Amino acid sequence: MAEYVASGPKVAVIGVTGAVGKEMVNVLHDRAFPLSELRLFASERSAGKTLETSYGSKTIEAFSVDAVAECDIALMAVSGDFAKEYAPQLAAKGVTVIDNSSAFRYDADKPLVIPEINPQDVGDARIIANPNCTTAILAVALWPLHQAYGLKKVLVSTYQAASGAGAEGMAELEDQARAYLDTGVAANKVFAHPLPFNLIPHIDVFQDNGYTKEEMKVTWESRKIMGLPDLALSCTAVRIPTSRAHAETAVIETERPCSPDEARAILSKAAGVKVVDDPAAKVYPMPLNASGKYDVEVGRIRQNLVFGDHGLEFFVCGDQLLKGAALNAVQIAEVVLEQRTVAA
Amino acid sequence: MAEYVASGPKVAVIGVTGAVGKEMVNVLHDRAFPLSELRLFASERSAGKTLETSYGSKTIEAFSVDAVAECDIALMAVSGDFAKEYAPQLAAKGVTVIDNSSAFRYDADKPLVIPEINPQDVGDARIIANPNCTTAILAVALWPLHQAYGLKKVLVSTYQAASGAGAEGMAELEDQARAYLDTGVAANKVFAHPLPFNLIPHIDVFQDNGYTKEEMKVTWESRKIMGLPDLALSCTAVRIPTSRAHAETAVIETERPCSPDEARAILSKAAGVKVVDDPAAKVYPMPLNASGKYDVEVGRIRQNLVFGDHGLEFFVCGDQLLKGAALNAVQIAEVVLEQRTVAA
Repeated sequence: MAEYVASGPKVAVIGVTGAVGKEMVNVLHDRAFPLSELRLFASERSAGKTLETSYGSKTIEAFSVDAVAECDIALMAVSGDFAKEYAPQLAAKGVTVIDNSSAFRYDADKPLVIPEINPQDVGDARIIANPNCTTAILAVALWPLHQAYGLKKVLVSTYQAASGAGAEGMAELEDQARAYLDTGVAANKVFAHPLPFNLIPHIDVFQDNGYTKEEMKVTWESRKIMGLPDLALSCTAVRIPTSRAHAETAVIETERPCSPDEARAILSKAAGVKVVDDPAAKVYPMPLNASGKYDVEVGRIRQNLVFGDHGLEFFVCGDQLLKGAALNAVQIAEVVLEQRTVAA
Repeated sequence: MAEYVASGPKVAVIGVTGAVGKEMVNVLHDRAFPLSELRLFASERSAGKTLETSYGSKTIEAFSVDAVAECDIALMAVSGDFAKEYAPQLAAKGVTVIDNSSAFRYDADKPLVIPEINPQDVGDARIIANPNCTTAILAVALWPLHQAYGLKKVLVSTYQAASGAGAEGMAELEDQARAYLDTGVAANKVFAHPLPFNLIPHIDVFQDNGYTKEEMKVTWESRKIMGLPDLALSCTAVRIPTSRAHAETAVIETERPCSPDEARAILSKAAGVKVVDDPAAKVYPMPLNASGKYDVEVGRIRQNLVFGDHGLEFFVCGDQLLKGAALNAVQIAEVVLEQRTVAA
């Protein structure tokens, strides 16, 4: 499939008033995505409003299939229900949809892509799923280690930021932190419980097996993206009072012997990853530094005490809105463009 | 050894101006510890000051070996260096010292005790070590599961509160959270980095194997307390912006098959533990609820996906100043009293 002229595709961002949609526009501009036109869509409620963007003042349009169908690529940052209804209609009209929801991630015929790992899966798909934020941030570190050592078991615990619940989540954390400091009490509407100075071991809905859907996403999506359908991976997902960077502990058991020094060398050459691992100098991944960055920080790399020379333990931290969402979506668009562009 | 008359021992709390020392006094009173006299000690700097306590207004005395030696039991909430210097001197004068520092925890001839697990280890020791907070909170949940299934592997990630760094840590979190909300910047003095809206995967000093001393404490102390010198246990310890309750994820592999329902039943009968596990009703362990409570909350109990029917995954949360410190110390004093009291 080679369909775009070199003058660049027309790009739509759908759901542009949300935290992820806004970052999609920023990332397109920052990475100089060679678009010929950018159109911004949201619900009827926001239509006609002006949005200040990296591209200057832009007017938000009301979403309609016909309007978006005038574009070549649509980045969707909307609910799963909305995506399920409209992405197929757009795809039928020739638009390549890159969807940030979980609506299509588990469909066998729809690629789920992290460009550092499985760009080849894009193929000629019209709907491409963008992974769960926690999965994307973890998988860029897991993949090079899998290539070197072979993953056998993966055990994950997460420290997830408020931004996973969107702009409303970030605002609730900040507003309720103020309330808590002033009155000793915080309220909650977006989150299941008050988040400031607390944590909540509950993200997305509970499944029959006792895991949350968020936790199962990390298992299901890691398997699909890395092409390891039987990978043994479990996760506990916990919301903590940080703003927009997710952190995760990971313990891996490997098929072949591994060493921390070698793993550091491997990861320091890996795309999308930055080794931040100098404990003596108090240097390790933290939301304070990883927020606003494209690369996922990896550190605290050490030989795991339980699995010995066939095990590693480490800590990752990445921006939930960037590698966890908007950046990865734009990177997918870059892969699409590269694979489908013809000379003018 | 049976030395105390039924009228009750004289008790000293050393380091009473700190967060743990204060809670020791509260807990002694709350549990109606049958003391005949309570004396409060701190540094020269605090001597003569009046402290409002559950026992009424009490004057703080300057610490001296001779003054404390007038007591039968001394609860120490001081630095390891201080404990190392003075606990042996007090013990030599017949005082039973229950020390909250890590100074004596790894001495083969000194008991390290969690009363729900190994009260028999108290014996006739004059120095008894109180465990690390993270260890104590985890071990009360691990022990009944070990008895039922046999622990083979344990993988832990922690979500530790500011109180682990004492009253100064709690104050820094609150003060700097205000600063961050007002100015967008938080400072740090107690912690290695600013803590509000951040996390720090670094507690205590780094060891040669890449683990922190805090992480190794969980391994070393769990082994000693449960009498499992070869237990395979690893931990990543992370400070997060909560005030005084530690939380932890745990994955265990067991010798014998296990099930979540059975584990819940076992834990619901276990001392020191409260099963808080009704996900459908959004009920699971959280700092918001576990703070100020004696029991460690255990929930999110499920069959682990990696170890299958020989594995469980769960979440614990306990008050760092109570079960993690003051409560366990007072419980040790209760064991001492019970084992050594004679009729008047």
